[in-house]
Amino acid sequence: MWKGHTTKRQEDKRQADRAKRSREGVRCAEMSMVCLTDFEEYAKEHLSKATWDYYAAGADECCTRDDNLLAYKRIRLRPRILRDVSISDTRTTVQGTEISFPVGIAPTAFHCLAWHEGEMATARATEAVNTCYITSTYSTCSVEEIVGAAPNGYRWFQLYVYRNRKVSEQIVHRVEALGYKALVLTVDVPYTGKRRNDIRNQFKLPPHLKVKNFDGVFEVKENAGPEEYGIPANTLDPSISWKDVYWLQSLTRLPIIIKGILTKEDAELAVEHGVQGIIVSNHGGRQLDGGPATIDALSEIVETVSRQDRGLPGRGDPYGKRCAEGRGPWSQVCFHWQAGGVWGLAYKGEEGVREVLQILNDEFRLSMALAGCRNVAEINRNLIQFSKL
Amino acid sequence: MWKGHTTKRQEDKRQADRAKRSREGVRCAEMSMVCLTDFEEYAKEHLSKATWDYYAAGADECCTRDDNLLAYKRIRLRPRILRDVSISDTRTTVQGTEISFPVGIAPTAFHCLAWHEGEMATARATEAVNTCYITSTYSTCSVEEIVGAAPNGYRWFQLYVYRNRKVSEQIVHRVEALGYKALVLTVDVPYTGKRRNDIRNQFKLPPHLKVKNFDGVFEVKENAGPEEYGIPANTLDPSISWKDVYWLQSLTRLPIIIKGILTKEDAELAVEHGVQGIIVSNHGGRQLDGGPATIDALSEIVETVSRQDRGLPGRGDPYGKRCAEGRGPWSQVCFHWQAGGVWGLAYKGEEGVREVLQILNDEFRLSMALAGCRNVAEINRNLIQFSKL
Amino acid sequence: MWKGHTTKRQEDKRQADRAKRSREGVRCAEMSMVCLTDFEEYAKEHLSKATWDYYAAGADECCTRDDNLLAYKRIRLRPRILRDVSISDTRTTVQGTEISFPVGIAPTAFHCLAWHEGEMATARATEAVNTCYITSTYSTCSVEEIVGAAPNGYRWFQLYVYRNRKVSEQIVHRVEALGYKALVLTVDVPYTGKRRNDIRNQFKLPPHLKVKNFDGVFEVKENAGPEEYGIPANTLDPSISWKDVYWLQSLTRLPIIIKGILTKEDAELAVEHGVQGIIVSNHGGRQLDGGPATIDALSEIVETVSRQDRGLPGRGDPYGKRCAEGRGPWSQVCFHWQAGGVWGLAYKGEEGVREVLQILNDEFRLSMALAGCRNVAEINRNLIQFSKL
Amino acid sequence: MWKGHTTKRQEDKRQADRAKRSREGVRCAEMSMVCLTDFEEYAKEHLSKATWDYYAAGADECCTRDDNLLAYKRIRLRPRILRDVSISDTRTTVQGTEISFPVGIAPTAFHCLAWHEGEMATARATEAVNTCYITSTYSTCSVEEIVGAAPNGYRWFQLYVYRNRKVSEQIVHRVEALGYKALVLTVDVPYTGKRRNDIRNQFKLPPHLKVKNFDGVFEVKENAGPEEYGIPANTLDPSISWKDVYWLQSLTRLPIIIKGILTKEDAELAVEHGVQGIIVSNHGGRQLDGGPATIDALSEIVETVSRQDRGLPGRGDPYGKRCAEGRGPWSQVCFHWQAGGVWGLAYKGEEGVREVLQILNDEFRLSMALAGCRNVAEINRNLIQFSKL
Repeated sequence: MWKGHTTKRQEDKRQADRAKRSREGVRCAEMSMVCLTDFEEYAKEHLSKATWDYYAAGADECCTRDDNLLAYKRIRLRPRILRDVSISDTRTTVQGTEISFPVGIAPTAFHCLAWHEGEMATARATEAVNTCYITSTYSTCSVEEIVGAAPNGYRWFQLYVYRNRKVSEQIVHRVEALGYKALVLTVDVPYTGKRRNDIRNQFKLPPHLKVKNFDGVFEVKENAGPEEYGIPANTLDPSISWKDVYWLQSLTRLPIIIKGILTKEDAELAVEHGVQGIIVSNHGGRQLDGGPATIDALSEIVETVSRQDRGLPGRGDPYGKRCAEGRGPWSQVCFHWQAGGVWGLAYKGEEGVREVLQILNDEFRLSMALAGCRNVAEINRNLIQFSKL
Repeated sequence: MWKGHTTKRQEDKRQADRAKRSREGVRCAEMSMVCLTDFEEYAKEHLSKATWDYYAAGADECCTRDDNLLAYKRIRLRPRILRDVSISDTRTTVQGTEISFPVGIAPTAFHCLAWHEGEMATARATEAVNTCYITSTYSTCSVEEIVGAAPNGYRWFQLYVYRNRKVSEQIVHRVEALGYKALVLTVDVPYTGKRRNDIRNQFKLPPHLKVKNFDGVFEVKENAGPEEYGIPANTLDPSISWKDVYWLQSLTRLPIIIKGILTKEDAELAVEHGVQGIIVSNHGGRQLDGGPATIDALSEIVETVSRQDRGLPGRGDPYGKRCAEGRGPWSQVCFHWQAGGVWGLAYKGEEGVREVLQILNDEFRLSMALAGCRNVAEINRNLIQFSKL
Repeated sequence: MWKGHTTKRQEDKRQADRAKRSREGVRCAEMSMVCLTDFEEYAKEHLSKATWDYYAAGADECCTRDDNLLAYKRIRLRPRILRDVSISDTRTTVQGTEISFPVGIAPTAFHCLAWHEGEMATARATEAVNTCYITSTYSTCSVEEIVGAAPNGYRWFQLYVYRNRKVSEQIVHRVEALGYKALVLTVDVPYTGKRRNDIRNQFKLPPHLKVKNFDGVFEVKENAGPEEYGIPANTLDPSISWKDVYWLQSLTRLPIIIKGILTKEDAELAVEHGVQGIIVSNHGGRQLDGGPATIDALSEIVETVSRQDRGLPGRGDPYGKRCAEGRGPWSQVCFHWQAGGVWGLAYKGEEGVREVLQILNDEFRLSMALAGCRNVAEINRNLIQFSKL
Repeated sequence: MWKGHTTKRQEDKRQADRAKRSREGVRCAEMSMVCLTDFEEYAKEHLSKATWDYYAAGADECCTRDDNLLAYKRIRLRPRILRDVSISDTRTTVQGTEISFPVGIAPTAFHCLAWHEGEMATARATEAVNTCYITSTYSTCSVEEIVGAAPNGYRWFQLYVYRNRKVSEQIVHRVEALGYKALVLTVDVPYTGKRRNDIRNQFKLPPHLKVKNFDGVFEVKENAGPEEYGIPANTLDPSISWKDVYWLQSLTRLPIIIKGILTKEDAELAVEHGVQGIIVSNHGGRQLDGGPATIDALSEIVETVSRQDRGLPGRGDPYGKRCAEGRGPWSQVCFHWQAGGVWGLAYKGEEGVREVLQILNDEFRLSMALAGCRNVAEINRNLIQFSKL
């Protein structure tokens, strides 16, 4: 069994730890999975160190990664009472399509590292729960396999721009033909962030896994040069600029959503360039360390552009009970990063992802009701506590 | 002896711990009970894990539960000196009735879990100390037993609205006939908050205990379906709204106090709907996680409604030395949640609750004097420190 | 040897700990005493638990005691450069008398608990260093012994008002006759604060020690009733008010300094009542828990009364390098509580107190110079950093 | 082998620790050096305790030293996207000379303590990387040796003013003749800060090392008196004032840069006195404890003087990715203190310093690009996040 790049010594220690816990009566397979933390702990226990490190990584000192969660705890909600919440309608509309609740699967790479069926399992689970699944470019199943696994799922495709524009162009045409409903242009990776443990682990995909969408696309020679996260290094184009948004618009009729905006200035530029949506994201704190927490950036952005558009937090609330803000013609979704997807996958594949999404839905529904909101439209800025003693 | 739902392994460990402490010479029965923390530690030591977890629970990540205490530590008092505090009068009036000091027993469920005499012991202690005891709907003694145990006690009754309005109506008439002096309508439980340990422990009442007030009221079939905290699940009505306040007013001549308000908007609505009082409470952090600390919410609310009414903090200060704010025609009581009642019960039943109330009274009296206040009326907003370097 | 009220088990453990440290080569007598923390650790090591607990106590949860130090760390100094600090003059004037630097010995009780010569050792050390020693009413040497031990020392006397005014009157006349230069009227003890460990330890003076100034003054019968910190309980008068300031002024021509003021309102009242000085103090956090840190209160007060008087922080900076603020006709001294006195006593009696005062003087002188101040008069509010990013 | 002033017991423990780690398979020589923390840990492991303590020291309680790093974490960057960062130009100009990126080697003493070749190794590494090396007066190689080791390096000289002005004068003429390009007048050491561990360790240079630049300059008699950091105590002149800046200007045609400014008032005075640059620095927190973090002081200063000059943070960002602010005719460099130099030296001498500078350059380049800046000129205040929820 492939163990990532964990050293023998590390693996021995992990196995000893597992055996010890087992003797102590904590049988993971039997433990009740009550909240997402339980899935996270299960994954930490069962994934190889290199895989866990990859998924858990933040850039540099991980300040932004950690602040992504801490920032939620600095917010206070202002629950309203006596509002007849006997019916809790968590449905919302995103790019004109109804989904069951404002949480989807944000793009994450390499699902086969967590579960042998990889993105096909994720796709089936999201289809079953009726929400949006943003397929990562770096999937270890091809988009055709993913669509085949869950033909009726609602899907967006996460896109990078490559130095070789033909590669991007081909994948755009492929996913458009396969029925993907939107393109999520990720703009915060002109270069890959420095994730120390990945360097220490010399992280790379094991031999039996590939970035399948690009099978044969890049000319990779065996041992020919450095590989970076499954594709040849330096294939992403750091020269991308707003002009490339026009170029992308010329290629496709799909709506374009820009992911990776953290300032009001860039949100305004996105509006001016006619994109259909933005996703406020710091890439889970994996790119620039020192940037704002997602929810703090969202707060700045919705103040500026909420009359005409709407912020979408990326890797939002891992516990599903706090919700995106802002109102207007654009849709609103709180996309979930690994907590929502990969830990569930690591637990039980499709079933695990469904359990995770079900917990998030239950927690979102309960919190919405306890805050006095009957539906997503009633969630607004007055729900946030500003006054302090 | 019933041990709750603690596993064998957990209980073994607890017993080993107790034995170890005993060998080390810490004999709990002999330790001096100086402050409420001592009672809390005693209870943690002696209650079964499931019972302790139930009483100590907060919702989800327990942010609000923990902030309830931390928020007090962010406040600075401004003590005044040379004010002749030779006489410290801690008496106050609540709903027209004088009580010995502004701390009462807030509604808490299942006192028989902590002490075999349950709510009867609590009632006797509160009567002896001459303060207000808000009986929980979820008592494990019936209201008749409680009144019988302490016939001259001053009591309010905490009320939920059930889907079956007849159930609520019957209990209102029962407690009114028994001499309860007010109804405390709890409005922050349209659904029960998610308390993770209760789920893990599969918390339920042991076979020999019941929610006695509803004995035979709900048609419960043995093993027929989920039970939630002693009564069948889904019996609370999540559709309650301000209309139900009018309905409740039509049923009774008792004053109605709304418990669970956390915003000035809802405080104003309470005034408009003609209720006699409000209790500012986040249900001990057991319902919506992420809401404000009680004392922070109180601060917002008294600024708005203090001219006509008065905020009442729920599960207020566990050490009894900080006091409710706001002045006006309404009464002011700082109700105590578990710290004030259950830990005392767990220690020595009626005697334990009396000890706890006595400590709270002593601490309140001393702090009031050290702050330069001779009586409750002299406690006002100037006592709070705002300026910082 | 008297061990306070430590139990046998506790003492056994302490002795075992000392033996263990000794085997590990940490010989306290040999360790270098570089900063006040070293003295504090030595004292913690060598005093009996009951004595240490008494000196280290704060009231209740010790929030204010702890904040007294934390508050200093929230302040940022603004050092100035190139100001020719070749001469550092730390002298200042207090009540018209020059002292060597703005740190004195604040009143602390029971010095014989820390060193057999008690207050006589403290008096000699302060005389040698030429600063002010505020003798506590609760000294274990009599004022006559103290004056005899250091006849040329500069001394103030800390005073309480007793229910039996004659007691206060007599002591005032005694200290005036003995050449004490000011009376420090302590106003924050209408009742004693609740110090949990003192209650647990049933702290009282050992049989061979007395509050010598009151030997035979109060009629104490052996075992006749509770004793509180060396004198019969309830002898302090909680009715003291501003009127008593006038009464005290009528008894004496000594300047009167009020100790225990924490608000600008009371500082203004002090000015109106014609007292000669105030000491901003929260009694080391031993009285009301929840009050402001000394330095925060000082900041509020000097803004109000600095044109006419001057704040004096009590139990100020334990490291002697931050200094009192405010300017005007009144003197300015940063009095040191236990850190400055008792830990030094516990180390080596008079020599220990001198070492402590020397360290404080060195640190004060160095910090003053590094901040660009040549003398105490140049220390002003511009030295404090307000702007933050 | 010289071990500093570590006691036998301490050294035994250190050696035991090393052996233990070695058995556990952590071979430092083999570990990958991914970020500066890795070098710091290596140095902590391999330097003698006295040397490590000397390099790591802060004054007194080390508040300022620690805040220097914490302050960076309180800042949030505002990254911009889609700006074509395919070319990242990290070059900048300082005092008219181009350097490869805005990080240089700040003056640090005694490099031979870390590596036998000392400052010669540092000089070669900085020359190779093409940035500025500020040689410390307290180098353990002479300036002639340093220049000889790296004849084409770009160098400034860090200068103190001695009581004996001739000493300062001679060294100024020497370094001017040797081609040093600027004088960095350090003004925050009228007296040496109190670094507790140095006192405890009785830190001094081992017999085989000297402050070579002053070999024979001060008349030191063997064991004649206290030595302080390699030269006789009390040789630095605490009377230096702005007049000495004029004196220094009269001695040399080199630009004069004042190091140690922390307030806008002093920054303005520096401008008025016609110096060519300032370095905002708190001496790594080794002088006045309680002063502002470097980056906080910089923020105050650039607001005041940025139109005409520019702030330079000393011991800036140890991870090289945050950069000095302010724009104008003056140059901008983020000088690195020990993290940048000494840990690298301790690891592998010249090669270690080059590795460290390379990592800093890589991290700076990457962060600049991820923030949307193509070159140093594009880094400005808009990059900093001010708005918070």
